[in-house]
Amino acid sequence: MQPRLRAGILGGGFMAEVHARAIRAAGSEVVLIASSSPDSSARAAARLGIHGIAPNARALIESDAVDVIHVCTPNAFHSEQAGLALLAGKPVVCEKPLATRVSDAEDLVSRARISVTPTAVPFIYRYYPAVREIRSRISHGSAGEMHLLHGSYLQDWLALPTTTNWRVDEKVGGSSRAFADIGVHWCDLMEFVTGHRITRLVSALSRSHPERGSTEDAASILFETDRGASGTLIASQITHGRKNRLHFSFDGELESYRWNQEHPGKFTASNQSSESTIYSGSAELSALSSQRLAHLPAGHPKGYQDAFNAFTADAYASFQDQNVDGLPTFVDGLRAAIITDAVLTSAQSGRWVDVVGPTDGTTAVTNNSLSVLDAALTQ
Amino acid sequence: MQPRLRAGILGGGFMAEVHARAIRAAGSEVVLIASSSPDSSARAAARLGIHGIAPNARALIESDAVDVIHVCTPNAFHSEQAGLALLAGKPVVCEKPLATRVSDAEDLVSRARISVTPTAVPFIYRYYPAVREIRSRISHGSAGEMHLLHGSYLQDWLALPTTTNWRVDEKVGGSSRAFADIGVHWCDLMEFVTGHRITRLVSALSRSHPERGSTEDAASILFETDRGASGTLIASQITHGRKNRLHFSFDGELESYRWNQEHPGKFTASNQSSESTIYSGSAELSALSSQRLAHLPAGHPKGYQDAFNAFTADAYASFQDQNVDGLPTFVDGLRAAIITDAVLTSAQSGRWVDVVGPTDGTTAVTNNSLSVLDAALTQ
Amino acid sequence: MQPRLRAGILGGGFMAEVHARAIRAAGSEVVLIASSSPDSSARAAARLGIHGIAPNARALIESDAVDVIHVCTPNAFHSEQAGLALLAGKPVVCEKPLATRVSDAEDLVSRARISVTPTAVPFIYRYYPAVREIRSRISHGSAGEMHLLHGSYLQDWLALPTTTNWRVDEKVGGSSRAFADIGVHWCDLMEFVTGHRITRLVSALSRSHPERGSTEDAASILFETDRGASGTLIASQITHGRKNRLHFSFDGELESYRWNQEHPGKFTASNQSSESTIYSGSAELSALSSQRLAHLPAGHPKGYQDAFNAFTADAYASFQDQNVDGLPTFVDGLRAAIITDAVLTSAQSGRWVDVVGPTDGTTAVTNNSLSVLDAALTQ
Amino acid sequence: MQPRLRAGILGGGFMAEVHARAIRAAGSEVVLIASSSPDSSARAAARLGIHGIAPNARALIESDAVDVIHVCTPNAFHSEQAGLALLAGKPVVCEKPLATRVSDAEDLVSRARISVTPTAVPFIYRYYPAVREIRSRISHGSAGEMHLLHGSYLQDWLALPTTTNWRVDEKVGGSSRAFADIGVHWCDLMEFVTGHRITRLVSALSRSHPERGSTEDAASILFETDRGASGTLIASQITHGRKNRLHFSFDGELESYRWNQEHPGKFTASNQSSESTIYSGSAELSALSSQRLAHLPAGHPKGYQDAFNAFTADAYASFQDQNVDGLPTFVDGLRAAIITDAVLTSAQSGRWVDVVGPTDGTTAVTNNSLSVLDAALTQ
Repeated sequence: MQPRLRAGILGGGFMAEVHARAIRAAGSEVVLIASSSPDSSARAAARLGIHGIAPNARALIESDAVDVIHVCTPNAFHSEQAGLALLAGKPVVCEKPLATRVSDAEDLVSRARISVTPTAVPFIYRYYPAVREIRSRISHGSAGEMHLLHGSYLQDWLALPTTTNWRVDEKVGGSSRAFADIGVHWCDLMEFVTGHRITRLVSALSRSHPERGSTEDAASILFETDRGASGTLIASQITHGRKNRLHFSFDGELESYRWNQEHPGKFTASNQSSESTIYSGSAELSALSSQRLAHLPAGHPKGYQDAFNAFTADAYASFQDQNVDGLPTFVDGLRAAIITDAVLTSAQSGRWVDVVGPTDGTTAVTNNSLSVLDAALTQ
Repeated sequence: MQPRLRAGILGGGFMAEVHARAIRAAGSEVVLIASSSPDSSARAAARLGIHGIAPNARALIESDAVDVIHVCTPNAFHSEQAGLALLAGKPVVCEKPLATRVSDAEDLVSRARISVTPTAVPFIYRYYPAVREIRSRISHGSAGEMHLLHGSYLQDWLALPTTTNWRVDEKVGGSSRAFADIGVHWCDLMEFVTGHRITRLVSALSRSHPERGSTEDAASILFETDRGASGTLIASQITHGRKNRLHFSFDGELESYRWNQEHPGKFTASNQSSESTIYSGSAELSALSSQRLAHLPAGHPKGYQDAFNAFTADAYASFQDQNVDGLPTFVDGLRAAIITDAVLTSAQSGRWVDVVGPTDGTTAVTNNSLSVLDAALTQ
Repeated sequence: MQPRLRAGILGGGFMAEVHARAIRAAGSEVVLIASSSPDSSARAAARLGIHGIAPNARALIESDAVDVIHVCTPNAFHSEQAGLALLAGKPVVCEKPLATRVSDAEDLVSRARISVTPTAVPFIYRYYPAVREIRSRISHGSAGEMHLLHGSYLQDWLALPTTTNWRVDEKVGGSSRAFADIGVHWCDLMEFVTGHRITRLVSALSRSHPERGSTEDAASILFETDRGASGTLIASQITHGRKNRLHFSFDGELESYRWNQEHPGKFTASNQSSESTIYSGSAELSALSSQRLAHLPAGHPKGYQDAFNAFTADAYASFQDQNVDGLPTFVDGLRAAIITDAVLTSAQSGRWVDVVGPTDGTTAVTNNSLSVLDAALTQ
Repeated sequence: MQPRLRAGILGGGFMAEVHARAIRAAGSEVVLIASSSPDSSARAAARLGIHGIAPNARALIESDAVDVIHVCTPNAFHSEQAGLALLAGKPVVCEKPLATRVSDAEDLVSRARISVTPTAVPFIYRYYPAVREIRSRISHGSAGEMHLLHGSYLQDWLALPTTTNWRVDEKVGGSSRAFADIGVHWCDLMEFVTGHRITRLVSALSRSHPERGSTEDAASILFETDRGASGTLIASQITHGRKNRLHFSFDGELESYRWNQEHPGKFTASNQSSESTIYSGSAELSALSSQRLAHLPAGHPKGYQDAFNAFTADAYASFQDQNVDGLPTFVDGLRAAIITDAVLTSAQSGRWVDVVGPTDGTTAVTNNSLSVLDAALTQ
């Protein structure tokens, strides 16, 4: 049994709580926290049951008491703080978006490569058993060629024009909101599950409440993949009644798979002659990777925190040189930044734009020399 | 009570059966049928319980025994047969697509105007109580400004590459398949319910099984409307497990409405503080137009044939000079042809294209001088 | 082709409308109506488009213009009017309950037997394709022995204590309400689909609003069947939010079947290794009897009126000496009366009571000498 | 901040894992484990990451290293091991059934009272935010008088006759299986949420696979409550396709509430004019007790482990003399044993039987002198 890693958390909001629970569930300890001010740090420390408070981000990152850095601050701070962690040679879990500019994300990936520091970005929807099961089935050819990849990610917490949040402020949240916040989750999941990569896209943004700033409330894209599939995605934060509905339908020649994040314990596999509902935890899960994640019997719902815990456990295992399959790293964070940039560019130009990168040289630096992107294809 | 209209049906397939049942449910009689050959006509007549057989389409149209013409033949014949009916001065119910070319559809609308002949095209999803209720609520401002109009129309009957049908043959079915068959239903419903009109769109077509011909298996569009909303639609005939799933979410500033054609007896109205499921036939239907259509108590499911019957009853009432609200006519058939043409054009050019028309002069000829397109706005 | 039967309808309410539409859809004509008063008859005639009005029930029944009698009056009148129809030697479709006393129902069955007059009682839920398919699968042994037969029939139209209706008045509606109105539908469907017959039951009645009279608002039963299964049913008219939810789960050794009347176009067939959703109209319907009823493609919803139409078409075919499978007759109406009586008796005594009959001698008189009860076993 | 409690776990199966995760999530430590044999203990310790192994249950219970005892062994051992824990004066979390005989459960409650030792039994479905919200609404009178309390708890893991498990062996599992395993969860939840108590019941048991032993595969009951409501429950372990479906509908005069454990993040509240779906984590949760449990935004699913964690956190808080609302204790375990006994008695006699106790004297000993049963009424 390896020594426990000691974690430090930057940020004191909702995501800091989720990270803290996950770190503890992985058997590790949160030893330090630093939020935006001493007061804020003290409140967060009390709320989360953390004994140590660092005076600022840099002090936390450089503290000898801390082995792993968790970046849970507002978007604009991510790349700088992640960069400091890499400079300190410490493994880092950085909330998405990894950076609000592609160049910053590229820079982080380079630094991680050079310093050989392991990283992770919580694209945690990869950590539901149903998701792994579908990925396994597609990679084994159960569905034949994939033709149509479509779905949506719908929320309503910004539906009313009067609602606001730091995410709405372009300076803090970045120049994309709905797509960068939730659209990238869908794209990451699609590429992870199908092994396809988006090569071109055309987009449209909706700014329904311009009084709230310039970032989009909703984004839609049409896309093509490197293996000839077509796709459609709508990401919205203004669809009343949808709380956190990430839904996909991946349609192949022989079979279609559908999954809804709000009911994560099951998915449907349909072919011409039958539509089956398959439950996580049942004997129908054939992939080892999905069985590993389904540690409750079927019908005992697994939730968001369970997925987050599984991601964190894998990240920490990776930080301790174990091989894990499918861990999202800074390379995946860079990929999300590249797609987001393409979405903004297309919306402005009204044209289809190409989506390129990261290149192979870059992907080669994923943790444990395991190419996450290749893993999707060869599992 | 007015004299019963006597109907003649062109075509002997599945849709001919649906029309025949609807004509009888409206209290009228089917007196003649003509299918593709004498044999086929005889078989269809026996199956549908029709006593008279016409030797060919022209003979049926010109027969003195027939007051109303129903065009239920393969797509390529629609415009010619509808044109003959107009020439004979007889009201005509023509299956969609009204024509496979915009110019033909325009020509039919002109002829209908000049001959003052009433027409109808079965965009029958307008005839569910839930649809009318949502339309009424939107027109009364319950949702505020509409921002996002999104949804899908998914089928699977052509999912396997080996499945074929006359619809697959471009010469018989027309140059668009998935969009012209089902995408136009969604667009008609969206424009009917919201009162918005598509002004621009960009599209992508998927031809997953090229061995089956050149028409698309799936089509996706991003669109903008004349009132500033954004929209997304995916229409597919190759999504395993989806039988006939027309689904929409119309998201306004204050409320979102969702409806699924496969469970037509209810819809959801969501706002920031609650998500309500509303049942057709319950006291919650506030619009007269929806109460009129809901002649069964809540929980007693209404189906496709009920909606078709209601459409047909309204068409026949219109043919006898009664005012009816929301009847789809050749003008709506032309609108569908124009949108389909824009979808094909955009897919080829990779550009956003404008969607224009029909012009006001044209819309003025809808039955009973009632502008269907205006009705959506002023109900 | 046989001559059309001419129908007369007793009663002018909601059910009269449903019968009228079904008669017409079957290609027959409604020639006479008689409601509770001349005024009421005139209004109903106008609303339903019926040209002839009879001065009273007896006159309608005895009119030479009428071949078939439909009894759609309040419950207390059913047995007398059905008896008059039998006396006149005319086929009769009588709404359930056939009679509010077992002895009256027995008397009607005897009279039908002696006069060799065909009869029908609209247990119309038998006429959904999904129901026939499940029945066929069970009779072919797909599920092995049936062990648990459970479900519910839930409505809310009497949930508020202030709501009332003639059904609430014991003198007009009979001494059982929730069970006699809707519970019997579930029991008929269970016995029809599984081929099991209830042999013993214990019941509890709920009279939540005693100010509304003495009939029950809800009834629950535990039961045993002649083949060793256990069962549970709850029937309620006071469950807010449930409009007309008849639901069953028939659990066998190898497979369970579930169906919900509010979404009639599909059912689930589950076994240990998979849960399949099966759509009416799809290629997965294996029984001829279900294919016959599913005349729309999968995903095109069939509704309550479609089922009623199919029942009526079969009843009329039976009245004209055709063999039809599974038509509910007065024998089934008597069966419902016997079960209702057992429910009331058990609720009063607090004991399990036996459910016996009708005897074989009685069942032998079903239309066309076809034993409906046997048909469930031998299809 | 109080000192952390150190936990010892008896048993090494699935439930031991769930307890271990919950103990750690509560910030405490699992220091010792003892399973059925040294080998089994070693394997469980490795799997669960526990460093200390006790040679047997007694040694674990009496170890100075352990503050709290978790009893996760097969049913037959519960009462003896819980008794030893009480003898040692250590707080104990005992899996249900607390005992397989009423007298043993009564004895444990007495001993806990005399020794003033706090206890807990994981009726963890009380720990979903939706459940607390419904409880609060009912106690505040939102639904008026409750009339009908019905539902089911359905599983399929014992559907095939060949499946077996220690639970099937009466000597190890006790004389009731389906009811004692899952039926009691439903009854506990019903009494907790509504504040009603079952006073009488009649039951039927189904032993579908007698070759598997004498305990029931399914149990159904009709019941009455002390406040005049009627109820129905079916508990089954042989319903194919149902994995862990605990469902209830609590119907009041003004409103009905429905919840399904497999989709725990939402419930429906229906009245005559609307059916609302309410999401955990949304602003619609009005009860403090539900807000406290919903620490994720709406749409981020909470699962079984989250509920178990919340139960465990409350149990540990209670063990450290904090007041917590609604913690299930040995009194509730005794209540479950009494109801189970009544179910077995009624099934044998075929009669309604009374359900009495525990008496007030007994309930007064719940942790922190807080009467859990009273709390349901006065919250």
